[in-house]
Amino acid sequence: MAAMASPYLKASTRHPHSFPRLPKTHFAPPSVSPFAHSHLRKPTRHPDFSFPDRPGRREGWASPLKGFMRDSEFLQTLHFNSLRLEDGSVVNMSVPIVLAIDDAQKNRVGSFTSVALVDEKDDLVAILSNIEIYKHNKEERIARTWGTTTPGLPYVEEAITGAGNWLIGGDLEVINPINYNDDLDRFRLSPAQLRDEFERRNADAVFAFQLRNPVHNGHALLMTDTRRRLLEMGYKNPVLLLHPLGGYTKADDVPLSWRMRQHEKVLEDGVLDPETTVVSIFPSPMHYAGPTEVQWHAKARINAGANFYIVGRDPAGMSHPIEKRRSI
Amino acid sequence: MAAMASPYLKASTRHPHSFPRLPKTHFAPPSVSPFAHSHLRKPTRHPDFSFPDRPGRREGWASPLKGFMRDSEFLQTLHFNSLRLEDGSVVNMSVPIVLAIDDAQKNRVGSFTSVALVDEKDDLVAILSNIEIYKHNKEERIARTWGTTTPGLPYVEEAITGAGNWLIGGDLEVINPINYNDDLDRFRLSPAQLRDEFERRNADAVFAFQLRNPVHNGHALLMTDTRRRLLEMGYKNPVLLLHPLGGYTKADDVPLSWRMRQHEKVLEDGVLDPETTVVSIFPSPMHYAGPTEVQWHAKARINAGANFYIVGRDPAGMSHPIEKRRSI
Repeated sequence: MAAMASPYLKASTRHPHSFPRLPKTHFAPPSVSPFAHSHLRKPTRHPDFSFPDRPGRREGWASPLKGFMRDSEFLQTLHFNSLRLEDGSVVNMSVPIVLAIDDAQKNRVGSFTSVALVDEKDDLVAILSNIEIYKHNKEERIARTWGTTTPGLPYVEEAITGAGNWLIGGDLEVINPINYNDDLDRFRLSPAQLRDEFERRNADAVFAFQLRNPVHNGHALLMTDTRRRLLEMGYKNPVLLLHPLGGYTKADDVPLSWRMRQHEKVLEDGVLDPETTVVSIFPSPMHYAGPTEVQWHAKARINAGANFYIVGRDPAGMSHPIEKRRSI
Repeated sequence: MAAMASPYLKASTRHPHSFPRLPKTHFAPPSVSPFAHSHLRKPTRHPDFSFPDRPGRREGWASPLKGFMRDSEFLQTLHFNSLRLEDGSVVNMSVPIVLAIDDAQKNRVGSFTSVALVDEKDDLVAILSNIEIYKHNKEERIARTWGTTTPGLPYVEEAITGAGNWLIGGDLEVINPINYNDDLDRFRLSPAQLRDEFERRNADAVFAFQLRNPVHNGHALLMTDTRRRLLEMGYKNPVLLLHPLGGYTKADDVPLSWRMRQHEKVLEDGVLDPETTVVSIFPSPMHYAGPTEVQWHAKARINAGANFYIVGRDPAGMSHPIEKRRSI
């Protein structure tokens, strides 16, 4: 827990454009939501999280979400794994993208309509505007996301159980994205940067592979076979997005820095072709929420330009923490 | 529990059209799903349940469902509160409509592709064909339907906890619908019969009111005010469907026979106008599943011809069985 983020919250004193400093409001570490972290802190042991979209730009992993979820978006996600847009269309959104605050933080926000999110050095990172504060029903969130409320769910214990009892939603504008300076920033391409890269390589199909552990031979076979099939389907230049998850993983998974070294080695050795492979880091934390999380994994890669997504057996699953069965 | 249904299952010996008798396979009472009962037994203390649709007829509460859910439909209901149809369209379906069987029943079905559902006198009620048997993951079903797995959920204890560990899905053909002979059968109109009744009354709008307790003044005001507003909107003959729930309710709710007497009295006394009110029984059991169940309550009434549905505060909700808060 000590290595978790230490983002700060400030309320603006005047509406809507100035954000003078309030006394620092420290987020209890586990209260920070999946996608709050990356821009809210300096490099830490596991640089996990990315913000949702900036307003008006379809470049975010969670597009068309414009920031942290308000109550209506949170409930739609829990009940429908989808969001209904203003034009009546429906898009997949299976995992809550929320920011938790505690009672003291809620009181400090008071009647302000915008808050500033700052890093540990008190530097402005982003502005959350038109905010809405609502109850963080943890039991319901866990039950509807994992299909169980059993003790022992890693992400729940890491980021939900100890979190604040309120969620704060709003439109997010990132002012100063954070660099991690951990020698892996070159792998941290945004969805927009990935789309540019695919275009630069003249890809006519992009197929994504999510993993949270080293590439093994079975993985490599899946990827090369997918490329072969896409060529058979008539695509001329299918490009692989090898997209390891860079957020929180449970203790017995292999750390990100080791995995990235292994992924580079796999390309150096020619197991995968560097010409047709883009290696990048997917900043989401691992929820181990099985099919609910897989939808998010695929949706985020579609937002980054992928047309095909490889899914294996029991993706994003884990054994039930208590009962003797494979999948929760 | 003793008053629950005692339906029987038989497997057909030849495929697909004959259903010779296998030794009777008694469903453990709580294993029978919400909508299995009404045609699977003779009158009992609480005549709860109706079958889903017959194939090819859009007359069922759960239309376009054609019988008990197969695995794909069950999972779509749990994750999306919706079903995707073959034409790509999506319809709401928030509550699992499933039939549970135990290990012995599963073994007895063996490789048969159809089973006969019979009543306690061994008379044929319906045929379930193209069956699929799959795991009844009770923990996930409860978590995703109620948003909690807390002990003390009435319907869970009544119909899920003790149910079999398998679900059997398939297309249902009702051969001999059951009469309850409890002096309330005249109120048991099917969706098709309700549509006919609305047509007979030349309704140009139908507004439905779900209730599971006596009509009180607040209810009456809601209904008369809704009619007034529909007239203001330009409808000439809005008809009210006063649609008390006739299935299982928890012990501290008022029994159906008393409620029906009260509803009749309300019409006799002119609190509601008999000319523009249809009183009928909605055969679903009460899940006390809050917003998840309300979707089902509304969808079923839409299938019966309703255009408007009145929803109150915390509909279909109950207090959390353990924690001191109003709504689960």
